[in-house]
Amino acid sequence: MVEMATEQITELSPSEWFMRNRNIAGFDNAARALYTALRELVENGLDACETSKALPEVIVSLKREQEDKRDPTVYVLRVEDHGVGVAADDVPTLFGKVLTGTKMALKQHRGHFGLGGKMAFLYGQVTTQSPIRIITCRINSRKVAIFSLKINIQRNEPQILERKVIPVSKFLQTQKASPVTTIDKKKRKDSSKKTSKKEPVWHGTITELSLMGDWQRSKGKILEYFKKTAIIVPYANLTFETPDGEVYRYERATESLPEPPEEILPHPHGVDTETLAQMIKVSKSTTLSDFLMDNFHRVGEKTAEDFLKFAELNGKKNPKKLSREEMVKLMESMEKYDKFLPPDPKCLSPIGEEILETGIKKELSPAFVTAVTRSPSVYSGHAFVVEVGLAYGGQIPLGMSIYRFSNRIPLLYDEGSDVTSKVVRELDWRRYHISPDRPIAIFIHLASTKIPYKTVGKEYIAEVDEIKREIDLGLKECARRLSIWLSKKERSEYVAKRMTLLKDYYAFIASTLERSISRKVDISKLFGNNKSNGIATATAQEEGGESVVDEETVVEKVAATSEKGRT
Amino acid sequence: MVEMATEQITELSPSEWFMRNRNIAGFDNAARALYTALRELVENGLDACETSKALPEVIVSLKREQEDKRDPTVYVLRVEDHGVGVAADDVPTLFGKVLTGTKMALKQHRGHFGLGGKMAFLYGQVTTQSPIRIITCRINSRKVAIFSLKINIQRNEPQILERKVIPVSKFLQTQKASPVTTIDKKKRKDSSKKTSKKEPVWHGTITELSLMGDWQRSKGKILEYFKKTAIIVPYANLTFETPDGEVYRYERATESLPEPPEEILPHPHGVDTETLAQMIKVSKSTTLSDFLMDNFHRVGEKTAEDFLKFAELNGKKNPKKLSREEMVKLMESMEKYDKFLPPDPKCLSPIGEEILETGIKKELSPAFVTAVTRSPSVYSGHAFVVEVGLAYGGQIPLGMSIYRFSNRIPLLYDEGSDVTSKVVRELDWRRYHISPDRPIAIFIHLASTKIPYKTVGKEYIAEVDEIKREIDLGLKECARRLSIWLSKKERSEYVAKRMTLLKDYYAFIASTLERSISRKVDISKLFGNNKSNGIATATAQEEGGESVVDEETVVEKVAATSEKGRT
Repeated sequence: MVEMATEQITELSPSEWFMRNRNIAGFDNAARALYTALRELVENGLDACETSKALPEVIVSLKREQEDKRDPTVYVLRVEDHGVGVAADDVPTLFGKVLTGTKMALKQHRGHFGLGGKMAFLYGQVTTQSPIRIITCRINSRKVAIFSLKINIQRNEPQILERKVIPVSKFLQTQKASPVTTIDKKKRKDSSKKTSKKEPVWHGTITELSLMGDWQRSKGKILEYFKKTAIIVPYANLTFETPDGEVYRYERATESLPEPPEEILPHPHGVDTETLAQMIKVSKSTTLSDFLMDNFHRVGEKTAEDFLKFAELNGKKNPKKLSREEMVKLMESMEKYDKFLPPDPKCLSPIGEEILETGIKKELSPAFVTAVTRSPSVYSGHAFVVEVGLAYGGQIPLGMSIYRFSNRIPLLYDEGSDVTSKVVRELDWRRYHISPDRPIAIFIHLASTKIPYKTVGKEYIAEVDEIKREIDLGLKECARRLSIWLSKKERSEYVAKRMTLLKDYYAFIASTLERSISRKVDISKLFGNNKSNGIATATAQEEGGESVVDEETVVEKVAATSEKGRT
Repeated sequence: MVEMATEQITELSPSEWFMRNRNIAGFDNAARALYTALRELVENGLDACETSKALPEVIVSLKREQEDKRDPTVYVLRVEDHGVGVAADDVPTLFGKVLTGTKMALKQHRGHFGLGGKMAFLYGQVTTQSPIRIITCRINSRKVAIFSLKINIQRNEPQILERKVIPVSKFLQTQKASPVTTIDKKKRKDSSKKTSKKEPVWHGTITELSLMGDWQRSKGKILEYFKKTAIIVPYANLTFETPDGEVYRYERATESLPEPPEEILPHPHGVDTETLAQMIKVSKSTTLSDFLMDNFHRVGEKTAEDFLKFAELNGKKNPKKLSREEMVKLMESMEKYDKFLPPDPKCLSPIGEEILETGIKKELSPAFVTAVTRSPSVYSGHAFVVEVGLAYGGQIPLGMSIYRFSNRIPLLYDEGSDVTSKVVRELDWRRYHISPDRPIAIFIHLASTKIPYKTVGKEYIAEVDEIKREIDLGLKECARRLSIWLSKKERSEYVAKRMTLLKDYYAFIASTLERSISRKVDISKLFGNNKSNGIATATAQEEGGESVVDEETVVEKVAATSEKGRT
């Protein structure tokens, strides 16, 4: 800043600034940029589907612009979702301008900075000079809007090169878009009424852009991204066609969708004076007390009264007449007052234990899986929920692997810096008789209205004490369950082994008995299908088979007897 | 983005966006924000001083706005530098608007994003509603400009509340600013001519802002920041007055200033088509070949010709008439062509081995110190130099500590993720007979026109292969030197120990000799100040003292003899 005093001062538009500093958003080089662009568009697609409460369907294809070109080269990325779609008039602002965002209301989103998708478009434009193509149709509309646009980077404004609107039927004839053939009738009765069964339906958004990429160097991360996304959204259909013509298809394994998040008012904790000033400006409240109740999450009459007493502010005062000192006092007190109710977790949408377990089973086929959704908690005024999964054995490779997710996004970079890795490292696994060289996979999902990412590229989560604690507790519960399962498994293996021995004893005893009683003793009946019953009868000598003694007990008794025999 | 389709779309100004996402720039909470704000302003102050080629002087004070207030509370931060100052007309744009930057020319700066200082102002404003005060005087001016301003956050525009210009003399009477009394005459003959010796001189910039802070929780980091800054800029005077009235003063230990960096043209490697299009638009060149030579760093006729052949582009073509495909081809070829000359290191300003060693000695008083400035190198078209220092013993605490710097900024957070930590961890210290539990301090300074930070908060450096390699080589050279010093030290300790033994032998032999030759033998002369000579003479029995045999040899011989005696 000051160092530029003797130089020429240039003002940058937000688009320019972000392009110059694109490495902080994950667009460092052709390999990383290809991965980041794809991921940002897939996440926007999933968000668009979940907003419409439909089971997500996202179709991705990546093609070389010219075949036989060596990396890095120009790729065409096409992402199609069957989500809510975008109103034609909103397209230029939402796709062609950096720093457009939602208003103050809070709810859980994949997108966090309102930036990712647009960074992908900008990156595509600066590396290929090509416009982006947007094709979109709102969920109950019959018209498809088709745009070709660029971003005027110096002015941070959309520049529309082409705009046309055509009927859905005509669009489906000319395009290779996949029609939405199956409509979930339970969830969308209204839309199914309007549509005759024979006519193909399509709604959603297709984004197509050219960008400089390096498929060879990003292939691994991109495939890992799809596999991990399939775990965390097992209710989605994902299709990915690679530049080499391979098609990866991740089919949904469940039709249950997590409850969508609701918007809530801001929590008093963490609000600054500038936001307060803006809120007061548009508020119709004439007293400070009313202002607090109308504009903040879970602030009722009693809370407002108690808080104002704590802050030493007059609740009857018109908020528009607060002095600078009073504004600062208000903000400071909001920060320090610890009796505000925590945020309502309805603004969050954890995926739930059952769906998480389904996702893990589907992609990893373990021998054992368990999941825990913790109760909602709060850090700096932001609600959050931690979900932990633990899988063991089966097709899981040896060693401990960690799968990190936040707001249903897999996090693939900087694992070592993430709060999760720290918790996993610090946990005393020996207490649970779990050795880290066994086939173990750990899954952590953090859902929050504000994920404390350390970077714009959404690589990893900062170490926040409250979050760390929840991960720790969730992980311990899972570890405890695995430990019980493992000891049962060991036990049953032990029992099976002893049973084999026992059969040999019985055979020997039977053969000696045969000689003394001079009749055939058939022990094969004792070890039939209903083993426990058989054994219980044979040993306990009780009538009616009522007192069923199971294999374990038999083995223990025999073991105890043979121990005694030895001493 | 797409997820906002059914919600109200809001466009954010860059100021608003950065305020909402201030955690990515290091303004997470009152403690971190206080540290970051202070550091950003100190760094701007140092840059302003170095631009004027003067020995830097930066004076910082931090006071509570109201005494007896518990943290977090409002602090007043005042940073004064004796640098170049800012022209009055530039003040509103440079201080009151986010995303103002320099033009395309490249040189090494502390500031990297053109953002840090302004984030501090914005944070101060949103937490206290107070304006910032800027007092500035250009280096050869006699007029001081005084501003009070706010940032209109919705419009990202400066809002001037007060502006006045007064003579320097009057300003010094009314203000508590420190006059610049000592002018470095060698470096600034011109300005000293203009100034009569009796009149006090003042130039530079004072920035004063109110902000919500938490001194208790940030004190440690802030003091660490000053101590580490004093190491990397040992030619600066730094003064810091804490809210508790303590004054920390870091005096300069050297008057030599590193050579300042020069601006260079952009390197062809890493330029995108958008930048190319902009350059072509303003260029007066009528052929592609001329355009390349005029606008790119170290591209002469031969290079241009060879490159154009490689790119299969016609050098005689008017650059304004390139098609989209040709632009992409140009960019792609610039990326792939590996025969461009590397960037000229004159755009860099490493501090140099001597200054680095001075800084380390001054702040840490080690028993041993060494430093290496590596040769300039290149990553993705950006020039960089790695400097490594290694200190041992003295007042350095036990264990290995790492001091990281980039463009003369100490990096205090996320050490574990930094490329430096990785190199230190991976180095095989045993090869150098250095045990990590000894008192060791490692210093790494990376100077570059583009530091690959992973975060806007400038916490740590990404793992770039070329940089990693240079750090590794520098560290190995330092480790080798320490290893030699350590073995010499061990050797001399060993020698000293043997000498004590030897004296005992001599005393014994002398006493037996005394009896057989019946006269006093004075061995004290043999072990006088000039020990080696004495011993050499006493054992080798050669004349003229020419063949001086040193203590080590004596010890070895005696040792060898006594070994033989034992067998």
